[in-house]
Amino acid sequence: MATKWTLDPDRCFAPEPARRKLARQLYDAVKNLPLVCPHGHVSPALLGDPNASLGSPAELLIIPDHYVFRMLYSQGVRLEDLGVPSQDGSVVESDPRRIWQRFAEHFYLFRATPTGLWLADVLVNLFGVEEKLTGENAQPIYDQLEKQLARPEFKPRTMFKQFNIEVLCTTDAPWDSLEYHQSLQREGFGNIRPTFRPDGVINLLAPGWHENLARLAEVCRTDITSYNHFLKCLEDRRAFFKQTGATATDQAALTAYTTRLSQPEAETIFSRALRGQLEKDDAHRFAGHMFMEMARMSLEDGLVMQMHIGSYRNHNEALFSQFGADKGADIPIATEWTQNLHPLLKAYGNDSRLRLILFCLDEGSYSRELAPLAGHYPAVFLGPPWWFHDSVNGMQRYFDRVIETAGLYNTAGFNDDTRAFASIPTRHDVWRRVACNWLAGLVLGGQLDEADAHEMAQDCAYRQAKRVYKLD
Amino acid sequence: MATKWTLDPDRCFAPEPARRKLARQLYDAVKNLPLVCPHGHVSPALLGDPNASLGSPAELLIIPDHYVFRMLYSQGVRLEDLGVPSQDGSVVESDPRRIWQRFAEHFYLFRATPTGLWLADVLVNLFGVEEKLTGENAQPIYDQLEKQLARPEFKPRTMFKQFNIEVLCTTDAPWDSLEYHQSLQREGFGNIRPTFRPDGVINLLAPGWHENLARLAEVCRTDITSYNHFLKCLEDRRAFFKQTGATATDQAALTAYTTRLSQPEAETIFSRALRGQLEKDDAHRFAGHMFMEMARMSLEDGLVMQMHIGSYRNHNEALFSQFGADKGADIPIATEWTQNLHPLLKAYGNDSRLRLILFCLDEGSYSRELAPLAGHYPAVFLGPPWWFHDSVNGMQRYFDRVIETAGLYNTAGFNDDTRAFASIPTRHDVWRRVACNWLAGLVLGGQLDEADAHEMAQDCAYRQAKRVYKLD
Amino acid sequence: MATKWTLDPDRCFAPEPARRKLARQLYDAVKNLPLVCPHGHVSPALLGDPNASLGSPAELLIIPDHYVFRMLYSQGVRLEDLGVPSQDGSVVESDPRRIWQRFAEHFYLFRATPTGLWLADVLVNLFGVEEKLTGENAQPIYDQLEKQLARPEFKPRTMFKQFNIEVLCTTDAPWDSLEYHQSLQREGFGNIRPTFRPDGVINLLAPGWHENLARLAEVCRTDITSYNHFLKCLEDRRAFFKQTGATATDQAALTAYTTRLSQPEAETIFSRALRGQLEKDDAHRFAGHMFMEMARMSLEDGLVMQMHIGSYRNHNEALFSQFGADKGADIPIATEWTQNLHPLLKAYGNDSRLRLILFCLDEGSYSRELAPLAGHYPAVFLGPPWWFHDSVNGMQRYFDRVIETAGLYNTAGFNDDTRAFASIPTRHDVWRRVACNWLAGLVLGGQLDEADAHEMAQDCAYRQAKRVYKLD
Repeated sequence: MATKWTLDPDRCFAPEPARRKLARQLYDAVKNLPLVCPHGHVSPALLGDPNASLGSPAELLIIPDHYVFRMLYSQGVRLEDLGVPSQDGSVVESDPRRIWQRFAEHFYLFRATPTGLWLADVLVNLFGVEEKLTGENAQPIYDQLEKQLARPEFKPRTMFKQFNIEVLCTTDAPWDSLEYHQSLQREGFGNIRPTFRPDGVINLLAPGWHENLARLAEVCRTDITSYNHFLKCLEDRRAFFKQTGATATDQAALTAYTTRLSQPEAETIFSRALRGQLEKDDAHRFAGHMFMEMARMSLEDGLVMQMHIGSYRNHNEALFSQFGADKGADIPIATEWTQNLHPLLKAYGNDSRLRLILFCLDEGSYSRELAPLAGHYPAVFLGPPWWFHDSVNGMQRYFDRVIETAGLYNTAGFNDDTRAFASIPTRHDVWRRVACNWLAGLVLGGQLDEADAHEMAQDCAYRQAKRVYKLD
Repeated sequence: MATKWTLDPDRCFAPEPARRKLARQLYDAVKNLPLVCPHGHVSPALLGDPNASLGSPAELLIIPDHYVFRMLYSQGVRLEDLGVPSQDGSVVESDPRRIWQRFAEHFYLFRATPTGLWLADVLVNLFGVEEKLTGENAQPIYDQLEKQLARPEFKPRTMFKQFNIEVLCTTDAPWDSLEYHQSLQREGFGNIRPTFRPDGVINLLAPGWHENLARLAEVCRTDITSYNHFLKCLEDRRAFFKQTGATATDQAALTAYTTRLSQPEAETIFSRALRGQLEKDDAHRFAGHMFMEMARMSLEDGLVMQMHIGSYRNHNEALFSQFGADKGADIPIATEWTQNLHPLLKAYGNDSRLRLILFCLDEGSYSRELAPLAGHYPAVFLGPPWWFHDSVNGMQRYFDRVIETAGLYNTAGFNDDTRAFASIPTRHDVWRRVACNWLAGLVLGGQLDEADAHEMAQDCAYRQAKRVYKLD
Repeated sequence: MATKWTLDPDRCFAPEPARRKLARQLYDAVKNLPLVCPHGHVSPALLGDPNASLGSPAELLIIPDHYVFRMLYSQGVRLEDLGVPSQDGSVVESDPRRIWQRFAEHFYLFRATPTGLWLADVLVNLFGVEEKLTGENAQPIYDQLEKQLARPEFKPRTMFKQFNIEVLCTTDAPWDSLEYHQSLQREGFGNIRPTFRPDGVINLLAPGWHENLARLAEVCRTDITSYNHFLKCLEDRRAFFKQTGATATDQAALTAYTTRLSQPEAETIFSRALRGQLEKDDAHRFAGHMFMEMARMSLEDGLVMQMHIGSYRNHNEALFSQFGADKGADIPIATEWTQNLHPLLKAYGNDSRLRLILFCLDEGSYSRELAPLAGHYPAVFLGPPWWFHDSVNGMQRYFDRVIETAGLYNTAGFNDDTRAFASIPTRHDVWRRVACNWLAGLVLGGQLDEADAHEMAQDCAYRQAKRVYKLD
């Protein structure tokens, strides 16, 4: 009875026929380019363990994806009922079919959202689902997914190849052994690279900071009893990451505050942290100082430096206590860059050997601060629209507000930033579509010629990410 | 000689033919749905008094409408000359024909503004005016309006029915007797409901706070000599409002600051207010605390809670002295939600029995804070574009920035928020048009199917407001 | 071989045929109107000295234009290699052909930027270049430009007439003798007017403040040993500027902070400045006070007052040391108006004899603060999109966010704000195109009739700037 569920081949293109036609031409020339994934959160075990599987449909599409379950939560569905693992021992739903049923009954919540678009693409084009998901057809569709997931084509490594991923960078703690990356390299998967993300030890207020530091010390085969030891350890681990294929680091913070502490100041704060006697502003100032230090190290070892700024993590404390981090409860705040980054840029911004890629959740700063900074400082590049803004409208706003001032070549292409492995192709596909639609609009509006548009489509879809992340 | 003044039947739709066609189809299916008006400022006397009339054209369209006279004021027309009543005894124009003449001579100022669109709709479609208003034809058009207004069809209650208003919520002080609402209910107008808005007593700096408190005490038949009495009175009046049909409360503040004061702190500040000895920050902290208390009460009595944040009231002090509040001189400020609402959401945000509807004048917070909050917390909903943003562009920005992250079902539909009774239908009409045009764009862009678009059009135009405000 | 380089005659128009057709009609009616240039940075010597020339292609298009060289700098090209004069004696490239070659090799960086659009218009339509600039054809195109520039048509005064500039306002220090303006007036160029910009003496932290003050004293034939002398001097120079044709002043500051200092406070701060003993906040408070004083003086002498707010000047300190100011290293910050302007507007905002034109780099304040302020206060007008926002998208955002609330008649038309003389016509042309495209969209969307659209096109392109800057 129901209409066959399909995706519009012209999705994300403007309806005006001339623009649509050109957008499609531009897109056709880039849609099959390999995927460059310089930043994301796929677990290296998924590919590193040859026996890894994607699990049940609920384990694949719902339980690990905060984009999905936050929306159901916002409408009163409990995370327990979606099988999200608790940290406090409370019982959660264990039947993936019941989880799937609840998801299907609320699938309408994703109307007009990027998550809805990604899910449709995955269900229809990856799994061959032919009916729009509802509470009624939830179980037969579950059957279908389950059957597909049992096939060899749905082994993670097979999918990785089918997805045409040229390079995939994971995000890893500095104490990580990188054993999966090493074994992958031995097996010829040198294109799965780690990224050095030291937030767990640089943020002195991070949950488990002492344990994290101990792990770092252990992997460095040393004691970390002073700030100097700490720096030395970070440098050593960066070298190890680089040797294991990393080309980049990543740091997150609530603000972009940077500052240069004197050596004694840094030492004093670090000692207080070791003793568990942090004073007000210690963590803030130390984080600001460590941005400077990480920039210095990047100049020395050549690792690209990423800053993800402006997310108020774990805003929902009750939920955090019960379920832990990354549960859809991180909320952005307004972000100031011009004054906060001044010390760092004064020290390193004119050095074109440094590549500093900025990510932001405050779109107001795109045209006001980020594009002017990237359009001036040799070291500064802008990351693609992040998180909530990794969407059709978010990308359009990004192109419209950033490029006029920064130019395309001070941006860092796309990255999917996802922990949802199956959604990687569809996220890149949306980016490629929106980029081509934007370029077509410029050509039709007489602001770009077609030859340049074709070059820029290649740059957006593929080349710029490789170039800026030093993956070529 | 002049062309007949008409409104484009496809107004507010994008010009691309395929999109326009679908927008029209979606609109045709919702344009005649009843109007749900869960928040506004129509005087209950207008409907409660069976002999009420709309007055002269100037009294209907100019004198009470700050959207209208602020624009003339900005271009040097004095409020005195527009008949706006003074509070300081200064003489103002009393001849409605001369007021109308001045308005007509400046009608061009409303080009490309929502007020211009509403006025055109009211004049053409409600009153049958056939020539665009100018200084030359001002008097004959005045004659025509005057004649129409004398007809029985222009009695407020007749218009109320003709407008097809299913429910209209007024905004009322806690000391209000609600006599009009009660008599309306006796007469079968149970669909005119009060809203509990206690700003005049919660804001310790409100002009006339002592008088307001005295009125509240009187209507509660008690003395309010302590904070506890005050709370008790508010609870009693909420119960009375609820019993008289209210489903919601409303509060306004400059910032969204919330905080939990201890009982002694609240008591101390309240005593200082009673003695007229407020200290710095007292009013700010008390308001922050009362948001918490109002949320608690809402959990207990089920009244929907509205917050209107970010308007710097009475910015023009000279004008305020002469003419009082609501004279077009309220100017927005930047609004922070993530940190300010944290205490309230920590306490009540996970409880899906609470419905907290947020209104904002800082569009920068739409995609940055409001949509992420609404897309996570079960208690949070977003109100429609408010005030200056109740416009074609304002609505488009709202849809484009909010829905991708919050989804449609964490928004609260539309409300007209108007004191201009005659403009109610045209305001809803603009919303319905813009919503349908937005949905058509999503369908044409392959991000939504037509069946979903039709459902969402119904939700936008009618169902979501009823649902979220508990009016069904 | 290469396609002939041309500009699309319909550039900046939306592709939908009906809208494009109307946009073109509106544009055809205004494209040849004279250019009104009420604010900019063209050197008066360029027109005042009858022997002035535009110099080499590099001197015309690259060396003085921070829009151009900042983009190359951001990609690692050194300013030295672009011939930008140093202030520290370091050697810079002196061969214009080598500068041009480097520029041409990086011309692709300007894809999809307004600078790219302006450069294309200048090269193709002003100089008759027929091939898109590349590293390969850089030298033949240089030859062509050099030949053109030697022709009498490329004398600045000839171009001024050819450009159809009705009035051009320069920006001048208060100690400027205005000798070029005076001689121009004697020669019949009364339409080249100065603007009074006293930042160099009002900003107590301005580089060279003591020297600037000495120059001001000298030109006033007095000593400036007190705040009162200082005020008197400013008033005298305003009178002199006015007598020499000025109709406006201009001030820039990081924030819009205004405050009224008492006479003794102002005197005390000024004395500390004279003694070189400024205390924290002195400069900030004095600047806030001087906004009040300049508004007072404007009320008295009728000069239009401009405020350019929100640029963090000389953010790149190393670059500033080597090359000085205006080198593409000014970065915007978030701007607050509602509270900062309150003291000034309280004092003068209701006086419709004052014209206060506000310029902003924070687009977030357009719909939130600036449009509501301009749509209420008789004294307030909004300047056109400034600097980074003088672009196709920047203008569209401006129209979409400002006009609904402020109306067109509280805006100040366009100004090019440029030091790049050759780019004046193309900048006005982009504005006229975008304005007409915006108006066409409103007509097609049923929000404006064609007659009003034609009126507004004239207002945007020509009349409103004349009116607000008192140039008629």
